[in-house]
Amino acid sequence: MNYDFLYEVGEDGIAHITLNRPEVMNALTFDIYAQLRDLFAGLRGDDEVRVVVLTGAGEHFCSGGDVHGIIGELFKRDMKGHLEFTRMTGAVVQHMRLLDKPIIASLNGMTAGAGAVLALASDLRLASEKARIAFLFSRVGLTGADMGAAHMLPRVIGMGRATELLMLGDTIDATTAERYGLVNRVVPHEELREATLQWARKLAQGPGFALSMTKHMLNAEQHMDIVSALEAEAQAQALMLMGEDHRLFYEAAKDKQKPKFTDR
Amino acid sequence: MNYDFLYEVGEDGIAHITLNRPEVMNALTFDIYAQLRDLFAGLRGDDEVRVVVLTGAGEHFCSGGDVHGIIGELFKRDMKGHLEFTRMTGAVVQHMRLLDKPIIASLNGMTAGAGAVLALASDLRLASEKARIAFLFSRVGLTGADMGAAHMLPRVIGMGRATELLMLGDTIDATTAERYGLVNRVVPHEELREATLQWARKLAQGPGFALSMTKHMLNAEQHMDIVSALEAEAQAQALMLMGEDHRLFYEAAKDKQKPKFTDR
Amino acid sequence: MNYDFLYEVGEDGIAHITLNRPEVMNALTFDIYAQLRDLFAGLRGDDEVRVVVLTGAGEHFCSGGDVHGIIGELFKRDMKGHLEFTRMTGAVVQHMRLLDKPIIASLNGMTAGAGAVLALASDLRLASEKARIAFLFSRVGLTGADMGAAHMLPRVIGMGRATELLMLGDTIDATTAERYGLVNRVVPHEELREATLQWARKLAQGPGFALSMTKHMLNAEQHMDIVSALEAEAQAQALMLMGEDHRLFYEAAKDKQKPKFTDR
Repeated sequence: MNYDFLYEVGEDGIAHITLNRPEVMNALTFDIYAQLRDLFAGLRGDDEVRVVVLTGAGEHFCSGGDVHGIIGELFKRDMKGHLEFTRMTGAVVQHMRLLDKPIIASLNGMTAGAGAVLALASDLRLASEKARIAFLFSRVGLTGADMGAAHMLPRVIGMGRATELLMLGDTIDATTAERYGLVNRVVPHEELREATLQWARKLAQGPGFALSMTKHMLNAEQHMDIVSALEAEAQAQALMLMGEDHRLFYEAAKDKQKPKFTDR
Repeated sequence: MNYDFLYEVGEDGIAHITLNRPEVMNALTFDIYAQLRDLFAGLRGDDEVRVVVLTGAGEHFCSGGDVHGIIGELFKRDMKGHLEFTRMTGAVVQHMRLLDKPIIASLNGMTAGAGAVLALASDLRLASEKARIAFLFSRVGLTGADMGAAHMLPRVIGMGRATELLMLGDTIDATTAERYGLVNRVVPHEELREATLQWARKLAQGPGFALSMTKHMLNAEQHMDIVSALEAEAQAQALMLMGEDHRLFYEAAKDKQKPKFTDR
Repeated sequence: MNYDFLYEVGEDGIAHITLNRPEVMNALTFDIYAQLRDLFAGLRGDDEVRVVVLTGAGEHFCSGGDVHGIIGELFKRDMKGHLEFTRMTGAVVQHMRLLDKPIIASLNGMTAGAGAVLALASDLRLASEKARIAFLFSRVGLTGADMGAAHMLPRVIGMGRATELLMLGDTIDATTAERYGLVNRVVPHEELREATLQWARKLAQGPGFALSMTKHMLNAEQHMDIVSALEAEAQAQALMLMGEDHRLFYEAAKDKQKPKFTDR
């Protein structure tokens, strides 16, 4: 496949998606949205890939939709054309959330607009000290309810702070984002790549099947009552208890070894 | 209208509701509840008002329901009369949450009981260093599930801390409230008014229609799964992309100007 | 009853459950799970008990399921046997959440795996400075969605941090747990017992009926929209306003006394 971003899969099972338009802070185009949508959808069946890392080339993560390439073009479209666009951007997030593999966003600088939502739709977020985050939709006359942000952000940082970030559109620094729970860790800028790889490698060692079940259940149980959730988890964990990876752990533990998981 | 609190609307589109019984820490009466309910309901159609600021006169925000004027009187009522009262207080919160304009609570001192729930039902909360917050219902033999507190508080600060505040009924200071995400900012007491006005003015500049959509979606998406939420946001944002305010932003951006939003 | 843990009920209405296998960090067995399930179910109708304290004997809280006694034995079971096990562990949590009395987890050391979920299923969590918490399921080849953890943890600490703890399985210290909102307080190790008793005594003084209503509503309103929740709270609080405890508060307040609640 030919992408408008860098895409590499290592032998360790880590796929690296690197947005690569540093001259415009890695702004997104119609094509990049469509390619991300198709790539994340396709990764669901790709057994080579166990973990995905999403980051930006150069000094920034992603500044969101390209002002000229997207906003300017959209004014030429009719109603159906607008909805096609917002459904396409939403489909990127849908395939990220439904992808049964962990996605780590590695925030190396400005993370704004649709870029902030891509970070939010990832499972884990690591940030450089230089990272800044802004859900700046209100500044451009739009609603903060973009690509699922009004669904995901309150569940990550609570309604009070989510309302503030989505309504005021202000920029927060990495330390504040960590304090809010919006990023999992802040590291010195030059250590971001290694810290990201460390988590990616750990997750790539599995247990991949169990991790995919954890992500699936975290999504699904948002909308269950506790009694239904307990039955759902009883079934999920019964499957895992009969899986190969759990047996591999037990065999290794008897020999005081670390298990080598097979994702089965 | 004649209110038992101060009500002023400035030319900047900012409505100021100031609870004004400082001799009893701005305790609420039956009449004040009813007036707040009707005022918030009516503000929905009031195009003059773009942002609401709720605060208290004197040294405190609000101590909750008046012990003598309300609690004493309620003992004279029958079952239907009690339910009429709790439905009326709940209706205040309902009209605050359904009001399609931002509400800023400016917490200038003690914020207790029903006063704490009024703050919680607002969209943003700014607090003086002197503010203190207490969901003190259990201290008076009542449930913390009052006026929607058991619905809203866990969504703002998480279930663990919400359970603590609602069960123990303890008072927390402003710094702790900020750390929990219960207030958005703490400022020196003498700066509270100006800090509140700064946020109110910013929100009053709009984009009002987009901000109302953000509030609507934050409410509605609490009960959607991610796939339904993405479709809902695709529709909401398609509308905003075709709105006048987004075009005003684009025109202004071409001239390197700040947009003047019209809320259309 | 004969339990494989210590169980004592004081005259103050505080029930103490102390996991008591310190030689294996209070690891859980099939029998202990079944006994906890039955004990928590039975406590619903036990008017002697007003508050439950859950802690561990010796230096730790609970290390989770016993590796040999449980994991080893489970490999001998068939599909139905596995599901029976996961439903039994889930039933412990179900009866904890549905128990209409406050449960305080007093975390005196390592709190891992199923032990971490027992802490999570409690209403309040106090931790010694020496406490550490690990949802280590992924390390043993299992899903973090165990005993309701994927339901409860995001609601306590948000989706970002919950995903991290459940996927990476890392251990966090007490201070980090408090910062995340996972524990309510951290105290010096030697003060944990007294701090726990202080909260337990306060809750045991009631108002027990109102506290049970608060817990019930916190559970139930997770799945209501705000309008339904406001009606539910209006009904709940109307009941409490007509309850004896609220009247006792009012009578005591007139005499500037503290009320003695009767839980009626």
